[in-house]
Amino acid sequence: MTTREAILEKLGFPLDRLPKPAALYETVVLTGDLAFVSGCLPIDGPDGALLRGKLGKDLTVEEGQKAAALAAANVLRALARKLGSLDAVVRIVKLGGYVSSAEGFTDQHLVVNGASELMVEVLGEAGRHSRAAVGVFELPLGAAVEVEAIAEVRRP
Amino acid sequence: MTTREAILEKLGFPLDRLPKPAALYETVVLTGDLAFVSGCLPIDGPDGALLRGKLGKDLTVEEGQKAAALAAANVLRALARKLGSLDAVVRIVKLGGYVSSAEGFTDQHLVVNGASELMVEVLGEAGRHSRAAVGVFELPLGAAVEVEAIAEVRRP
Amino acid sequence: MTTREAILEKLGFPLDRLPKPAALYETVVLTGDLAFVSGCLPIDGPDGALLRGKLGKDLTVEEGQKAAALAAANVLRALARKLGSLDAVVRIVKLGGYVSSAEGFTDQHLVVNGASELMVEVLGEAGRHSRAAVGVFELPLGAAVEVEAIAEVRRP
Repeated sequence: MTTREAILEKLGFPLDRLPKPAALYETVVLTGDLAFVSGCLPIDGPDGALLRGKLGKDLTVEEGQKAAALAAANVLRALARKLGSLDAVVRIVKLGGYVSSAEGFTDQHLVVNGASELMVEVLGEAGRHSRAAVGVFELPLGAAVEVEAIAEVRRP
Repeated sequence: MTTREAILEKLGFPLDRLPKPAALYETVVLTGDLAFVSGCLPIDGPDGALLRGKLGKDLTVEEGQKAAALAAANVLRALARKLGSLDAVVRIVKLGGYVSSAEGFTDQHLVVNGASELMVEVLGEAGRHSRAAVGVFELPLGAAVEVEAIAEVRRP
Repeated sequence: MTTREAILEKLGFPLDRLPKPAALYETVVLTGDLAFVSGCLPIDGPDGALLRGKLGKDLTVEEGQKAAALAAANVLRALARKLGSLDAVVRIVKLGGYVSSAEGFTDQHLVVNGASELMVEVLGEAGRHSRAAVGVFELPLGAAVEVEAIAEVRRP
Protein backbone atom coordinates (compact mmCIF):
# COMPACT_ATOMS: atom_id res chain seq x y z
CA MET A 1 0.00 0.00 0.00
CA THR A 2 1.32 3.44 -0.93
CA THR A 3 1.43 6.42 1.45
CA ARG A 4 -1.52 7.98 -0.35
CA GLU A 5 -3.58 4.82 0.00
CA ALA A 6 -2.69 4.57 3.68
CA ILE A 7 -3.91 8.14 4.24
CA LEU A 8 -7.19 7.39 2.48
CA GLU A 9 -7.74 4.31 4.65
CA LYS A 10 -6.76 6.17 7.82
CA LEU A 11 -9.40 8.78 6.98
CA GLY A 12 -12.01 6.02 7.09
CA PHE A 13 -12.19 4.96 3.44
CA PRO A 14 -10.86 1.40 2.90
CA LEU A 15 -9.58 1.08 -0.68
CA ASP A 16 -11.55 -2.04 -1.48
CA ARG A 17 -15.02 -0.61 -0.84
CA LEU A 18 -15.71 0.74 -4.34
CA PRO A 19 -19.45 0.47 -5.13
CA LYS A 20 -20.63 -1.02 -8.42
CA PRO A 21 -21.81 1.31 -11.22
CA ALA A 22 -25.52 2.13 -10.79
CA ALA A 23 -26.17 1.75 -14.50
CA LEU A 24 -24.66 1.06 -17.93
CA TYR A 25 -21.30 2.82 -17.80
CA GLU A 26 -17.62 2.39 -16.96
CA THR A 27 -16.39 3.94 -13.72
CA VAL A 28 -13.13 5.15 -15.31
CA VAL A 29 -12.11 5.62 -18.96
CA LEU A 30 -8.53 6.46 -19.96
CA THR A 31 -7.58 8.55 -23.00
CA GLY A 32 -4.06 9.84 -23.51
CA ASP A 33 -2.80 11.05 -20.12
CA LEU A 34 -6.29 11.71 -18.81
CA ALA A 35 -8.65 9.59 -16.73
CA PHE A 36 -12.34 10.48 -16.83
CA VAL A 37 -14.13 9.28 -13.70
CA SER A 38 -17.92 8.83 -13.78
CA GLY A 39 -20.16 10.69 -11.39
CA CYS A 40 -19.69 8.89 -8.06
CA LEU A 41 -22.38 8.68 -5.39
CA PRO A 42 -21.93 8.63 -1.60
CA ILE A 43 -22.12 4.88 -1.06
CA ASP A 44 -19.63 2.98 1.10
CA GLY A 45 -18.97 -0.33 -0.61
CA PRO A 46 -20.89 -2.67 -2.96
CA ASP A 47 -23.41 -3.38 -0.21
CA GLY A 48 -23.37 0.09 1.35
CA ALA A 49 -26.28 2.39 2.06
CA LEU A 50 -26.62 5.48 -0.13
CA LEU A 51 -26.56 8.88 1.62
CA ARG A 52 -29.86 10.37 0.46
CA GLY A 53 -31.68 13.68 0.80
CA LYS A 54 -31.62 17.35 -0.15
CA LEU A 55 -29.33 19.95 1.33
CA GLY A 56 -31.27 22.75 2.95
CA LYS A 57 -34.08 20.38 3.94
CA ASP A 58 -32.94 16.90 4.93
CA LEU A 59 -29.21 17.41 5.54
CA THR A 60 -26.96 20.00 7.17
CA VAL A 61 -23.94 21.46 5.39
CA GLU A 62 -21.70 19.29 7.56
CA GLU A 63 -23.63 16.14 6.60
CA GLY A 64 -23.38 17.22 2.97
CA GLN A 65 -19.62 17.64 3.30
CA LYS A 66 -19.34 14.11 4.66
CA ALA A 67 -21.37 12.83 1.70
CA ALA A 68 -19.13 14.76 -0.70
CA ALA A 69 -16.03 13.30 0.94
CA LEU A 70 -17.43 9.77 0.55
CA ALA A 71 -18.24 10.38 -3.14
CA ALA A 72 -14.71 11.76 -3.61
CA ALA A 73 -13.28 8.70 -1.85
CA ASN A 74 -15.09 6.61 -4.48
CA VAL A 75 -13.37 8.69 -7.18
CA LEU A 76 -10.02 7.80 -5.60
CA ARG A 77 -10.96 4.14 -5.08
CA ALA A 78 -11.94 3.96 -8.77
CA LEU A 79 -8.65 5.53 -9.89
CA ALA A 80 -6.65 3.18 -7.66
CA ARG A 81 -8.43 0.14 -9.08
CA LYS A 82 -8.06 1.27 -12.71
CA LEU A 83 -4.42 2.38 -12.43
CA GLY A 84 -3.19 -0.20 -9.94
CA SER A 85 -2.05 2.47 -7.51
CA LEU A 86 -2.93 6.00 -6.40
CA ASP A 87 0.70 6.90 -7.09
CA ALA A 88 -0.21 6.86 -10.79
CA VAL A 89 -2.33 10.00 -10.26
CA VAL A 90 -0.24 12.96 -11.44
CA ARG A 91 -2.90 15.55 -10.72
CA ILE A 92 -6.61 15.93 -10.10
CA VAL A 93 -7.45 18.33 -12.93
CA LYS A 94 -11.15 18.96 -12.40
CA LEU A 95 -13.96 18.06 -10.00
CA GLY A 96 -17.62 18.47 -10.80
CA GLY A 97 -19.85 18.57 -7.72
CA TYR A 98 -23.62 18.26 -8.05
CA VAL A 99 -25.52 18.96 -4.84
CA SER A 100 -29.18 17.96 -4.42
CA SER A 101 -30.66 21.25 -3.21
CA ALA A 102 -33.87 22.49 -1.66
CA GLU A 103 -35.20 25.94 -2.58
CA GLY A 104 -33.01 28.68 -1.17
CA PHE A 105 -29.98 26.51 -0.37
CA THR A 106 -26.92 28.31 -1.74
CA ASP A 107 -23.95 26.74 0.09
CA GLN A 108 -23.08 24.22 -2.63
CA HIS A 109 -19.49 25.50 -2.62
CA LEU A 110 -19.12 24.64 1.08
CA VAL A 111 -20.63 21.19 0.59
CA VAL A 112 -18.29 20.36 -2.30
CA ASN A 113 -15.35 21.48 -0.15
CA GLY A 114 -15.82 18.12 1.56
CA ALA A 115 -14.67 16.48 -1.69
CA SER A 116 -11.94 19.04 -2.37
CA GLU A 117 -10.43 18.71 1.09
CA LEU A 118 -10.21 14.94 0.81
CA MET A 119 -8.33 15.23 -2.49
CA VAL A 120 -5.73 17.55 -0.94
CA GLU A 121 -5.44 15.48 2.26
CA VAL A 122 -4.73 12.31 0.30
CA LEU A 123 -2.76 13.62 -2.69
CA GLY A 124 -1.18 16.82 -1.38
CA GLU A 125 -0.38 19.35 -4.12
CA ALA A 126 -1.44 16.79 -6.74
CA GLY A 127 -4.92 16.99 -5.26
CA ARG A 128 -5.40 20.70 -5.99
CA HIS A 129 -7.96 21.01 -8.78
CA SER A 130 -10.29 23.23 -10.75
CA ARG A 131 -13.95 22.78 -9.92
CA ALA A 132 -17.57 23.51 -10.65
CA ALA A 133 -20.23 23.19 -7.95
CA VAL A 134 -23.92 23.51 -8.75
CA GLY A 135 -27.24 22.82 -7.06
CA VAL A 136 -29.40 20.32 -8.90
CA PHE A 137 -33.05 19.42 -8.35
CA GLU A 138 -32.75 15.66 -8.08
CA LEU A 139 -29.98 13.05 -8.30
CA PRO A 140 -30.07 9.33 -9.20
CA LEU A 141 -31.57 7.15 -6.44
CA GLY A 142 -32.13 10.26 -4.29
CA ALA A 143 -28.40 10.77 -3.63
CA ALA A 144 -27.38 13.88 -1.69
CA VAL A 145 -24.37 14.61 -3.90
CA GLU A 146 -22.60 13.34 -7.01
CA VAL A 147 -18.90 13.98 -7.75
CA GLU A 148 -17.19 13.44 -11.12
CA ALA A 149 -13.51 13.99 -11.93
CA ILE A 150 -10.84 14.34 -14.57
CA ALA A 151 -7.30 13.38 -13.57
CA GLU A 152 -3.91 13.48 -15.27
CA VAL A 153 -2.38 10.03 -14.82
CA ARG A 154 0.51 7.75 -15.69
CA ARG A 155 -1.04 4.87 -17.59
CA PRO A 156 -0.47 1.36 -16.36
CA MET B 1 -21.74 3.95 -45.45
CA THR B 2 -19.80 2.18 -42.70
CA THR B 3 -21.14 -0.69 -40.60
CA ARG B 4 -21.56 1.64 -37.64
CA GLU B 5 -23.53 4.13 -39.69
CA ALA B 6 -25.72 1.35 -41.06
CA ILE B 7 -26.53 0.22 -37.51
CA LEU B 8 -27.44 3.76 -36.49
CA GLU B 9 -29.78 4.09 -39.48
CA LYS B 10 -31.30 0.66 -38.89
CA LEU B 11 -32.10 1.72 -35.31
CA GLY B 12 -34.19 4.54 -36.76
CA PHE B 13 -31.72 7.42 -36.83
CA PRO B 14 -30.85 8.46 -40.41
CA LEU B 15 -27.37 10.04 -40.45
CA ASP B 16 -28.44 13.19 -42.27
CA ARG B 17 -31.01 14.38 -39.74
CA LEU B 18 -28.70 16.43 -37.51
CA PRO B 19 -30.58 19.43 -36.08
CA LYS B 20 -29.09 22.92 -36.22
CA PRO B 21 -27.49 24.40 -33.07
CA ALA B 22 -30.13 26.14 -30.94
CA ALA B 23 -27.83 29.09 -30.23
CA LEU B 24 -24.35 30.57 -30.74
CA TYR B 25 -22.04 27.55 -30.55
CA GLU B 26 -20.32 24.84 -32.57
CA THR B 27 -21.76 21.35 -32.39
CA VAL B 28 -18.29 19.72 -32.27
CA VAL B 29 -14.84 21.17 -31.49
CA LEU B 30 -11.66 19.13 -31.98
CA THR B 31 -8.52 19.51 -29.86
CA GLY B 32 -5.68 17.01 -30.03
CA ASP B 33 -7.25 13.55 -30.19
CA LEU B 34 -10.44 14.66 -28.46
CA ALA B 35 -13.78 15.80 -29.84
CA PHE B 36 -16.02 17.84 -27.54
CA VAL B 37 -19.67 17.53 -28.55
CA SER B 38 -22.13 20.20 -27.42
CA GLY B 39 -25.17 19.33 -25.37
CA CYS B 40 -27.56 17.72 -27.88
CA LEU B 41 -31.33 17.85 -27.54
CA PRO B 42 -33.89 15.19 -28.56
CA ILE B 43 -34.85 16.64 -31.95
CA ASP B 44 -35.05 14.53 -35.10
CA GLY B 45 -33.73 16.64 -37.96
CA PRO B 46 -33.50 20.38 -38.74
CA ASP B 47 -37.30 20.59 -38.96
CA GLY B 48 -38.03 18.04 -36.24
CA ALA B 49 -40.20 18.45 -33.16
CA LEU B 50 -38.42 18.68 -29.81
CA LEU B 51 -39.29 16.04 -27.18
CA ARG B 52 -40.40 18.22 -24.28
CA GLY B 53 -41.47 17.72 -20.67
CA LYS B 54 -40.29 16.66 -17.23
CA LEU B 55 -39.59 13.12 -16.15
CA GLY B 56 -41.74 12.11 -13.21
CA LYS B 57 -44.59 14.33 -14.41
CA ASP B 58 -45.00 14.50 -18.21
CA LEU B 59 -42.95 11.51 -19.35
CA THR B 60 -42.39 7.90 -18.30
CA VAL B 61 -38.92 6.44 -17.84
CA GLU B 62 -39.33 4.60 -21.15
CA GLU B 63 -40.24 7.83 -22.96
CA GLY B 64 -37.24 9.49 -21.34
CA GLN B 65 -34.98 6.68 -22.53
CA LYS B 66 -36.22 7.21 -26.08
CA ALA B 67 -35.50 10.92 -25.77
CA ALA B 68 -32.02 10.15 -24.43
CA ALA B 69 -31.38 7.76 -27.34
CA LEU B 70 -32.41 10.47 -29.83
CA ALA B 71 -30.13 13.03 -28.17
CA ALA B 72 -27.31 10.48 -28.27
CA ALA B 73 -28.04 9.80 -31.94
CA ASN B 74 -27.50 13.52 -32.51
CA VAL B 75 -24.10 13.22 -30.78
CA LEU B 76 -23.21 10.45 -33.26
CA ARG B 77 -24.64 12.35 -36.24
CA ALA B 78 -22.55 15.37 -35.23
CA LEU B 79 -19.37 13.29 -34.91
CA ALA B 80 -20.01 11.64 -38.29
CA ARG B 81 -20.46 15.02 -39.97
CA LYS B 82 -17.38 16.56 -38.35
CA LEU B 83 -15.09 13.56 -38.88
CA GLY B 84 -16.44 12.34 -42.21
CA SER B 85 -17.20 8.89 -40.79
CA LEU B 86 -18.18 7.22 -37.54
CA ASP B 87 -15.18 4.93 -38.07
CA ALA B 88 -13.01 7.85 -36.94
CA VAL B 89 -14.43 7.50 -33.41
CA VAL B 90 -11.84 5.60 -31.37
CA ARG B 91 -13.82 5.72 -28.15
CA ILE B 92 -16.66 7.54 -26.43
CA VAL B 93 -14.81 8.80 -23.36
CA LYS B 94 -17.56 10.55 -21.41
CA LEU B 95 -21.28 11.23 -21.60
CA GLY B 96 -23.05 13.92 -19.60
CA GLY B 97 -26.78 13.36 -19.27
CA TYR B 98 -29.04 16.11 -17.94
CA VAL B 99 -32.60 15.00 -17.24
CA SER B 100 -35.43 17.51 -16.75
CA SER B 101 -36.91 16.26 -13.49
CA ALA B 102 -40.03 16.80 -11.43
CA GLU B 103 -39.81 16.70 -7.63
CA GLY B 104 -39.10 13.20 -6.37
CA PHE B 105 -37.97 11.72 -9.69
CA THR B 106 -34.74 9.82 -9.03
CA ASP B 107 -34.36 7.48 -12.00
CA GLN B 108 -32.04 9.74 -14.02
CA HIS B 109 -29.56 6.86 -14.33
CA LEU B 110 -32.18 4.68 -16.02
CA VAL B 111 -33.21 7.47 -18.39
CA VAL B 112 -29.61 8.15 -19.45
CA ASN B 113 -29.16 4.42 -20.09
CA GLY B 114 -31.15 5.15 -23.27
CA ALA B 115 -28.15 7.15 -24.49
CA SER B 116 -25.57 4.71 -23.18
CA GLU B 117 -27.20 1.70 -24.82
CA LEU B 118 -27.29 3.41 -28.20
CA MET B 119 -23.55 4.14 -27.98
CA VAL B 120 -22.75 0.50 -27.31
CA GLU B 121 -25.18 -0.81 -29.94
CA VAL B 122 -23.63 1.38 -32.64
CA LEU B 123 -19.96 1.42 -31.62
CA GLY B 124 -19.51 -1.82 -29.69
CA GLU B 125 -16.64 -1.74 -27.18
CA ALA B 126 -15.69 1.74 -28.47
CA GLY B 127 -19.04 2.95 -27.21
CA ARG B 128 -18.37 2.08 -23.56
CA HIS B 129 -17.94 5.33 -21.66
CA SER B 130 -17.72 7.08 -18.31
CA ARG B 131 -20.79 9.10 -17.42
CA ALA B 132 -22.53 11.56 -15.16
CA ALA B 133 -26.33 11.70 -14.95
CA VAL B 134 -28.11 14.44 -13.00
CA GLY B 135 -31.62 15.81 -12.65
CA VAL B 136 -31.94 19.46 -13.62
CA PHE B 137 -34.85 21.82 -13.05
CA GLU B 138 -35.30 23.11 -16.59
CA LEU B 139 -33.62 22.63 -19.98
CA PRO B 140 -33.45 24.88 -23.06
CA LEU B 141 -36.76 25.06 -24.97
CA GLY B 142 -38.35 22.71 -22.45
CA ALA B 143 -36.34 19.68 -23.63
CA ALA B 144 -36.77 16.43 -21.69
CA VAL B 145 -33.05 15.58 -21.78
CA GLU B 146 -29.73 16.97 -22.96
CA VAL B 147 -26.69 14.77 -23.72
CA GLU B 148 -23.11 16.04 -24.17
CA ALA B 149 -20.04 13.95 -24.99
CA ILE B 150 -16.27 13.75 -25.20
CA ALA B 151 -14.80 11.27 -27.70
CA GLU B 152 -11.31 10.13 -28.61
CA VAL B 153 -11.04 10.38 -32.39
CA ARG B 154 -8.77 10.08 -35.40
CA ARG B 155 -8.70 13.56 -36.92
CA PRO B 156 -9.64 13.96 -40.56
CA MET C 1 -1.51 44.73 -23.46
CA THR C 2 -2.51 42.55 -26.41
CA THR C 3 -5.29 43.35 -28.86
CA ARG C 4 -7.52 40.71 -27.26
CA GLU C 5 -6.98 42.19 -23.81
CA ALA C 6 -7.71 45.67 -25.10
CA ILE C 7 -11.02 44.45 -26.55
CA LEU C 8 -11.97 42.83 -23.24
CA GLU C 9 -11.23 46.05 -21.37
CA LYS C 10 -13.06 48.17 -23.93
CA LEU C 11 -16.14 45.97 -23.43
CA GLY C 12 -16.10 46.97 -19.76
CA PHE C 13 -14.07 44.16 -18.18
CA PRO C 14 -10.71 45.41 -16.84
CA LEU C 15 -8.22 42.52 -16.82
CA ASP C 16 -7.17 42.96 -13.21
CA ARG C 17 -10.63 42.49 -11.65
CA LEU C 18 -10.54 38.70 -11.24
CA PRO C 19 -12.50 37.68 -8.12
CA LYS C 20 -11.00 35.27 -5.59
CA PRO C 21 -12.15 31.62 -5.58
CA ALA C 22 -15.26 31.20 -3.42
CA ALA C 23 -13.93 27.98 -1.89
CA LEU C 24 -11.13 25.41 -1.86
CA TYR C 25 -10.10 25.15 -5.52
CA GLU C 26 -7.77 26.50 -8.19
CA THR C 27 -9.27 28.86 -10.75
CA VAL C 28 -7.27 27.28 -13.62
CA VAL C 29 -5.44 23.94 -13.89
CA LEU C 30 -3.22 23.11 -16.89
CA THR C 31 -2.72 19.60 -18.25
CA GLY C 32 -1.04 18.98 -21.61
CA ASP C 33 -2.35 21.62 -24.02
CA LEU C 34 -5.59 22.08 -22.11
CA ALA C 35 -6.61 24.58 -19.45
CA PHE C 36 -9.55 23.68 -17.22
CA VAL C 37 -11.22 26.79 -15.80
CA SER C 38 -13.36 26.47 -12.69
CA GLY C 39 -16.99 27.52 -12.68
CA CYS C 40 -16.86 31.35 -12.61
CA LEU C 41 -19.56 33.49 -11.04
CA PRO C 42 -20.76 36.93 -12.15
CA ILE C 43 -18.69 39.04 -9.76
CA ASP C 44 -16.72 42.09 -10.89
CA GLY C 45 -13.47 42.10 -8.92
CA PRO C 46 -12.29 40.81 -5.52
CA ASP C 47 -14.58 43.30 -3.77
CA GLY C 48 -17.41 43.17 -6.32
CA ALA C 49 -21.07 42.43 -5.74
CA LEU C 50 -22.39 39.09 -6.98
CA LEU C 51 -25.24 39.15 -9.52
CA ARG C 52 -27.89 37.10 -7.75
CA GLY C 53 -31.35 35.71 -8.55
CA LYS C 54 -33.27 33.26 -10.70
CA LEU C 55 -34.03 33.70 -14.36
CA GLY C 56 -37.75 33.68 -15.02
CA LYS C 57 -38.46 35.28 -11.65
CA ASP C 58 -35.88 37.84 -10.51
CA LEU C 59 -34.02 38.57 -13.75
CA THR C 60 -34.86 39.15 -17.41
CA VAL C 61 -33.11 37.27 -20.21
CA GLU C 62 -31.12 40.42 -20.98
CA GLU C 63 -29.98 40.73 -17.36
CA GLY C 64 -29.05 37.05 -17.42
CA GLN C 65 -26.99 37.60 -20.58
CA LYS C 66 -25.09 40.40 -18.85
CA ALA C 67 -24.41 38.10 -15.90
CA ALA C 68 -23.22 35.35 -18.28
CA ALA C 69 -20.92 37.83 -20.03
CA LEU C 70 -19.41 38.87 -16.69
CA ALA C 71 -18.86 35.23 -15.68
CA ALA C 72 -17.24 34.61 -19.08
CA ALA C 73 -15.05 37.70 -18.59
CA ASN C 74 -13.84 36.06 -15.38
CA VAL C 75 -12.95 32.94 -17.39
CA LEU C 76 -10.83 35.14 -19.68
CA ARG C 77 -9.31 37.08 -16.78
CA ALA C 78 -8.35 33.79 -15.15
CA LEU C 79 -6.76 32.48 -18.36
CA ALA C 80 -4.83 35.74 -18.85
CA ARG C 81 -3.49 35.60 -15.31
CA LYS C 82 -2.51 31.92 -15.52
CA LEU C 83 -0.97 32.10 -18.99
CA GLY C 84 0.51 35.60 -18.83
CA SER C 85 -1.45 36.72 -21.88
CA LEU C 86 -4.74 36.02 -23.67
CA ASP C 87 -2.65 35.44 -26.81
CA ALA C 88 -1.73 32.06 -25.32
CA VAL C 89 -5.34 30.91 -25.81
CA VAL C 90 -5.39 28.81 -28.98
CA ARG C 91 -9.09 28.01 -28.77
CA ILE C 92 -12.01 27.93 -26.37
CA VAL C 93 -12.94 24.26 -26.65
CA LYS C 94 -16.00 24.03 -24.40
CA LEU C 95 -18.21 26.24 -22.26
CA GLY C 96 -20.54 24.92 -19.59
CA GLY C 97 -23.30 27.35 -18.64
CA TYR C 98 -25.44 26.76 -15.55
CA VAL C 99 -28.42 29.07 -15.27
CA SER C 100 -30.35 29.46 -12.00
CA SER C 101 -33.89 28.93 -13.22
CA ALA C 102 -37.42 29.39 -11.93
CA GLU C 103 -40.12 26.89 -12.91
CA GLY C 104 -41.01 27.20 -16.57
CA PHE C 105 -37.97 29.21 -17.64
CA THR C 106 -36.58 27.55 -20.77
CA ASP C 107 -34.37 30.21 -22.39
CA GLN C 108 -31.09 29.02 -20.87
CA HIS C 109 -29.56 28.87 -24.36
CA LEU C 110 -30.26 32.59 -24.89
CA VAL C 111 -28.84 33.51 -21.48
CA VAL C 112 -25.62 31.57 -22.10
CA ASN C 113 -25.28 33.34 -25.46
CA GLY C 114 -24.12 36.28 -23.34
CA ALA C 115 -21.01 34.25 -22.50
CA SER C 116 -20.60 32.84 -25.99
CA GLU C 117 -20.79 36.24 -27.66
CA LEU C 118 -18.11 37.67 -25.39
CA MET C 119 -15.76 34.83 -26.27
CA VAL C 120 -16.16 35.49 -30.00
CA GLU C 121 -15.93 39.28 -29.62
CA VAL C 122 -12.64 39.01 -27.72
CA LEU C 123 -11.00 36.01 -29.38
CA GLY C 124 -12.55 35.95 -32.86
CA GLU C 125 -12.53 32.49 -34.46
CA ALA C 126 -10.53 31.15 -31.49
CA GLY C 127 -13.53 31.98 -29.33
CA ARG C 128 -15.92 29.64 -31.16
CA HIS C 129 -16.68 26.72 -28.84
CA SER C 130 -18.82 23.71 -28.08
CA ARG C 131 -21.26 24.22 -25.25
CA ALA C 132 -23.80 22.83 -22.83
CA ALA C 133 -26.43 25.07 -21.22
CA VAL C 134 -28.72 23.79 -18.49
CA GLY C 135 -31.13 25.21 -15.93
CA VAL C 136 -30.19 24.40 -12.34
CA PHE C 137 -32.23 24.88 -9.19
CA GLU C 138 -29.73 26.82 -7.09
CA LEU C 139 -26.16 28.09 -7.49
CA PRO C 140 -23.47 28.91 -4.89
CA LEU C 141 -24.16 32.16 -2.99
CA GLY C 142 -27.38 32.64 -4.97
CA ALA C 143 -25.54 33.43 -8.23
CA ALA C 144 -27.65 33.91 -11.35
CA VAL C 145 -25.26 31.97 -13.59
CA GLU C 146 -22.04 29.96 -13.45
CA VAL C 147 -19.75 29.46 -16.46
CA GLU C 148 -16.91 26.89 -16.68
CA ALA C 149 -14.55 26.36 -19.61
CA ILE C 150 -11.94 24.17 -21.27
CA ALA C 151 -9.42 25.90 -23.52
CA GLU C 152 -6.58 24.73 -25.76
CA VAL C 153 -3.55 26.83 -24.83
CA ARG C 154 0.16 27.39 -25.37
CA ARG C 155 1.74 26.79 -21.98
CA PRO C 156 3.89 29.50 -20.46
